[in-house]
Order: sequence, then structure tokens, then C-alpha cells
Amino acid sequence: MTHQQKMDYLQQSFSVRFEYKVIFTGHLFSRSNTALKDFFDSRRSDNIKKIFFVVDEGVAKHHPSLEQDIRAYFSDIKGYSLIPEIFKIEGGENAKNNSGYFYKLVNAVDEFGIDRHSYIVAVGGGSILDLVGYAAAVSHRGIRHIRIPTTVLSQNDSGVGVKNGINYQSKKNFLGTFVPPVAVFNDYHFLTTLSDQEWRSGISEAIKVALIKDAGFFNWLRDNAHLLARRDMTAMKYLIERCARMHVEHIAGGDPFEMGSSRPLDFGHWSAHKIEQLSNFAIRHGEAVALGIALDSTYSWLSGRLTEAELKQIVSMMKTVGFAVTHPLMQIHDENSVLLQGLNEFREHLGGKLTIMLLDAIGKGVEVHELDVPLLIKASDWLRASS
Amino acid sequence: MTHQQKMDYLQQSFSVRFEYKVIFTGHLFSRSNTALKDFFDSRRSDNIKKIFFVVDEGVAKHHPSLEQDIRAYFSDIKGYSLIPEIFKIEGGENAKNNSGYFYKLVNAVDEFGIDRHSYIVAVGGGSILDLVGYAAAVSHRGIRHIRIPTTVLSQNDSGVGVKNGINYQSKKNFLGTFVPPVAVFNDYHFLTTLSDQEWRSGISEAIKVALIKDAGFFNWLRDNAHLLARRDMTAMKYLIERCARMHVEHIAGGDPFEMGSSRPLDFGHWSAHKIEQLSNFAIRHGEAVALGIALDSTYSWLSGRLTEAELKQIVSMMKTVGFAVTHPLMQIHDENSVLLQGLNEFREHLGGKLTIMLLDAIGKGVEVHELDVPLLIKASDWLRASS
Repeated sequence: MTHQQKMDYLQQSFSVRFEYKVIFTGHLFSRSNTALKDFFDSRRSDNIKKIFFVVDEGVAKHHPSLEQDIRAYFSDIKGYSLIPEIFKIEGGENAKNNSGYFYKLVNAVDEFGIDRHSYIVAVGGGSILDLVGYAAAVSHRGIRHIRIPTTVLSQNDSGVGVKNGINYQSKKNFLGTFVPPVAVFNDYHFLTTLSDQEWRSGISEAIKVALIKDAGFFNWLRDNAHLLARRDMTAMKYLIERCARMHVEHIAGGDPFEMGSSRPLDFGHWSAHKIEQLSNFAIRHGEAVALGIALDSTYSWLSGRLTEAELKQIVSMMKTVGFAVTHPLMQIHDENSVLLQGLNEFREHLGGKLTIMLLDAIGKGVEVHELDVPLLIKASDWLRASS
Repeated sequence: MTHQQKMDYLQQSFSVRFEYKVIFTGHLFSRSNTALKDFFDSRRSDNIKKIFFVVDEGVAKHHPSLEQDIRAYFSDIKGYSLIPEIFKIEGGENAKNNSGYFYKLVNAVDEFGIDRHSYIVAVGGGSILDLVGYAAAVSHRGIRHIRIPTTVLSQNDSGVGVKNGINYQSKKNFLGTFVPPVAVFNDYHFLTTLSDQEWRSGISEAIKVALIKDAGFFNWLRDNAHLLARRDMTAMKYLIERCARMHVEHIAGGDPFEMGSSRPLDFGHWSAHKIEQLSNFAIRHGEAVALGIALDSTYSWLSGRLTEAELKQIVSMMKTVGFAVTHPLMQIHDENSVLLQGLNEFREHLGGKLTIMLLDAIGKGVEVHELDVPLLIKASDWLRASS
């Protein structure tokens, strides 16, 4: 045993590099649009790779030629084999609530022999992307995944990021992972068939990042709120690109897999998560975030951070876009108001220490570690009176 | 709309850094051993973090004071709260085959309010570590996870790595992720209660890395095979530390999350995976790998790579350790032999292109992309005749 040596521990250290493009385009599956073809051509290898599409049922309904367009588009691309069956799954929170969908996807991976170097492509809103991204992330320890977000919210925020997940026993994103997609294609044409509510809903995440990080973007939102309200596509494309860029840079510059405890992008979210749940998800995430932003902006003013003039600009802009800034479920009457449970749940979600983002100014977020309940009641009252 | 600008795509690029220690120790839960206490003390924060233990039923049976020792050990550590209920789960492949265990763990995370900054500690063999690691990886998008491997195989190979997973519809590791643990504690004392079969079984991974990467380590194995066979702990500690170090370095130096298609550590594994399945997991992974190594080493000789003298050294060393080098399920009689299906399944697992590691010499692996069936039949015959 002459080789025996003293070794108390090994230090493992490595970095894993992740790269992907977020491509802004329109009419992605038109034969004249080569964005997707170029992507696949650039990754072609000796082995035929499979491509499996999962499409939001609502998107398929609004775009009746979509499946046919996808099949026609891929008939031209060499080195890949499109799985003939295109899966359709209902959009919205149900996609994440019903674990049957997760197993339906996992079974498809098995049945169609989709390996780790094949591709699963999700076309739809944030819920479909979250569900499909999760199924792709855990099947064979990770199948390559492409996102084609079809809503404002998914194009400017969740769809360009690195998270996925499904709900478990009504708990939001209880099961999920951090796994980046291999590419994101934002096709503005899908936005044309959104309802007004869906169109508006995604704007709240843009308002959020502008308020905590970018006063110039806030001014743009203020000046273009009326155009956004009347569904001006040029304004919306600008909003999405700028917001997506901030989101992408935030992820790369910070803590992509959120190993620390800070969650700076969760401005307005502690109450938003709670009223989504209290409303049984009748209030959409984007509308809930708008309500949460209004509440925490008002609190920022009442606690001496934001000026009254700034707050009024924020509230006025949000109303011009079409957002409600108050809601019966957002009322805080006393210390026992059910909305306040959202603070505890948010604390648990963060891992023990409460960290809430407030505003020192428009474009300047600041983290605090507690909120004053009497001031929250005042903020809730002020918003109710203002609307 | 004066702000409109041309922007076809955003390029996202970032790296995520992972660090963890693999600590070699003994009697981890003895009050005089501060390894685990030091780890937790160094990570203490203002917020009480929870610690949830999951223990291999077999390990608990062989170490009847283990639960009590764990409770006593943590009663001394400030800043943490041990979940009083210590979960016990049957070890072996059943832990990964029965999805009820996965949900049992996820439900525990929910019920006990275990957040992302709390810890799940798994004590057991590779199957328990894989199961618990997977549940930890996907709950809340990743709870911190500590591994305490109790078998030779998990201490020198799988337990110090970054993979986890469970089986799905009998398909090995069909669901899983790449997520590093925050620490690994290798306690040699657990090895004292292994059966001879378990003790031996883990040695095959050490033989594997020695053969493909490290002739010096092979010579050590050859010279110490008799000590390993008679359960000499000093020899085993050396083997585990050296093998674990090679495994840790391989992960850091290569492609930790296996985004490419090379799988150099899968020497001998194409047939090993298949006979495990054919035997309904009656043949343990380590024994199956030994059989696979014998087959592919013999094939390496027959295809003009390895010398006969080298092959004989390999086979003789494996027999001295106590391994069988042939088995009825390993026989290849003709092109329709069921074992050959393992080649196709391995190809699918890799993602289309078959890559098999062979030996150019002891300590020098070489990748090939096809195997010759008549030569495989010869190799199988030679091994049967040699034993």
C-alpha cells in the first residue's frame, strides 16, 4: 500500500456555458422566412434528428393553417425528421395544473424515440412553454428545447428566460428546473389574434422592469401608453424587444439559476401571486402583476421613497394602457386580511428571508426586508379612492 | 416612434459556476467528527434552514443507531432545524422504479415547508441518491442537496457526480437532470456492512477508468486485487479516493452536463445496460459493467488493438477480485442474439450516432463508431472458453 496518500477532500469546480439566441421575426412558418431553417441548417449533423412540435390549442384555433404550414416548412429542411403528429394542449394555467399533460409529453418522448439530441418545439403562451420546457428538461436528463412564445408576456419575459415548471397540488411552479432553451423565436404575427386582455396583460412586466431599472423606458411607456392601448403593433414590437433585452441581460448579468436569495425581478409579485391564487387564476398573471405594482408603488410613496408626482405618473400610465389598479381581492382592511398571507408565502418561496423590491424613484428599485402593515392598508385605501 | 431600432436577435450567453467538495471521512455522525458540522457552520445565515434526511432502509437496518446518531449530531448545530421525521426508502432499483417514492418525497417537501435554501440529505446507495437527487432537483426548481453514499459504487462514481434520475416504465433514468450536489460525504464505515457482492460490485467502475485512462492505476489494481477480494479497507479507501478523483476531474474537464454526444465513461456499458435489463436487475450494475468490460476488452484484442498479454492481465485481475467475466445472458450466438439490441438502444441513448469506447492499450481508450458482429461472437466465445 505504498500509494496511500493523505486526501481529506476533493474540490470540484466547473462552469457550464449556455448560449441561445432570441430571434425577432414574423410569419415564422412562411416558406420565405428562413429564420428557423437557418437555425436548423447551422446545427445539421450526420445523424437525422427528430423534431417534435407541441402547440397551444388556442393558437392552433386562431391560426388554422398552422399545422399545415409547419409540415410544409419542414419538408424543405434536410437532416431532420418532423414527428408527423403535432400535439395540441390547452393553454393557460390548466396546462400546468393537470399532470396528465406532463405524462402525455413524456410518453410521446418514449413512443416517438425522441433522444437528447432531438428537438422539442413549443408554440404557445407562457403556460405551454413552462410545461413543455419542463417535460423536455427532465426527459433523458434534457432534450433540446425551442420556444416559440405567442403572447406578449411570454415574448417579453418568461419565454426568453431559463425557467420552466408545472403546478403541483395547486402550488405554482412547485416542480420545475432552470434549463435554457436552445433558441427562442418571437413571432409578432401571433400577437394579432390575442384578446385585448391578453395583449394588455404582458405589458405589466415591461412596466415592472422600467420602474425598477430604466427611467428612459418608463418615459417611453408613458408617451406610448395610448398607442399600446389601441394595439399599435410598431409600439408593441418595440416594447417587447426592449423588455426582452433587459430580461436577457438581467439573467446573464446576475444569478441565472437563482442560487442566491435575491429576486429583483419580483417587484409587485408578492401580492400578485396571492391574488392569482385567491381568484382561482381568473385574474391573469399580468393583470395581477399590474395590481401588485400599483400597490407597491403606492407603498413606496407612502414610505417616503417615491414622490407623489412620480406615483401619479405611474398610476396614470397604467390606467391609460387599460389596467385596473385596484381590485376587491387586493383590499387590505386589517392585519388579518388574507392578501397579507402572500408576504409569508413569498418569504417561504425565497427561502426564509423576506426581500421585497420597492421604488426609490422611477427607474430605481431598492430592496427592503419588511413591510409595515398599517402603511400597506393606507396604500390599498389610497388606490381604491383613486380609481 | 422615434425609438424604433433594428434588432433581429439578442444573443444570450452566460456561464453558471458549480462548486462542491467530496469529503472522505468515517463515522460521520459521531459527535467527535466535525466534518458535517463544519460544513453547515460555514453556510449559516440569519435564517433557520431546514434539513431533511432520507435514508436507505437497508443502511438503517445495518446501522441501527443511525437515526438516533443523526438527531444527536444535529442537536448541536445552530441555525438549522432538523425535520424530526427521517424518511426511510428501500434501496436498490426499486427506489427508482416505483414513482410513488418520488411523490412521497415531493409531498414531504410540501408538507414540511422545505424551501430552496434548505437541505435534503440522502444516505444510501446509488439508487437512493439518484431518486432523492431528482426529487430535490425539481422541487421548487432545486433544493440544496447533500449526498452521503454508502456503497463502493456510489462513493467512487455516481455519488460524486452530477446526475440524478428515476426509471419510467422500466426505462432506466428516463426522467432525470444534471444538478450537482452542494457536498458529498464519503463515509468508509458504511462499507463495513456491505455484502461481498456489493463490496465487489463497485470495483468495476474503478477498473473501467483505469483501463481507459490510467495504466498506473491499473497496475495498482492488479497488484492489490487480492487485498480488495479479502475486503482490506485500506486498499478500498485508496481505490475509492483515486477513482472518485478521476471521476470528479473528468466531469470538470469535459462536458459536465453532456451536451455533446461523447460518453467516454461508458466503456463496457452498452452490453451492461442490456443484461441488467434482461436479468430484471438481478445482475447488479457493477457486475454487469464487469461483464461488459470483459467483452469489450476481448473485442479490443480480437480487433487488433490490445495485446493478448494485456487482455489476460485484465481478465486475471477481474477474476482475482471475484468478478465473473461471462454469463449466459452475455452469450452472443448470432446476429439475432438479444444482447445485440443493446447496441441499438445505446445508439438511441446517445442521440443517433453510435460511439463505443475500446482499448488501444491498458490505460488508453479509443472511440469507434461501429462493432463487427462476427468479432463480437468470437469475443463472447473466447470469454466462455476462458472461464
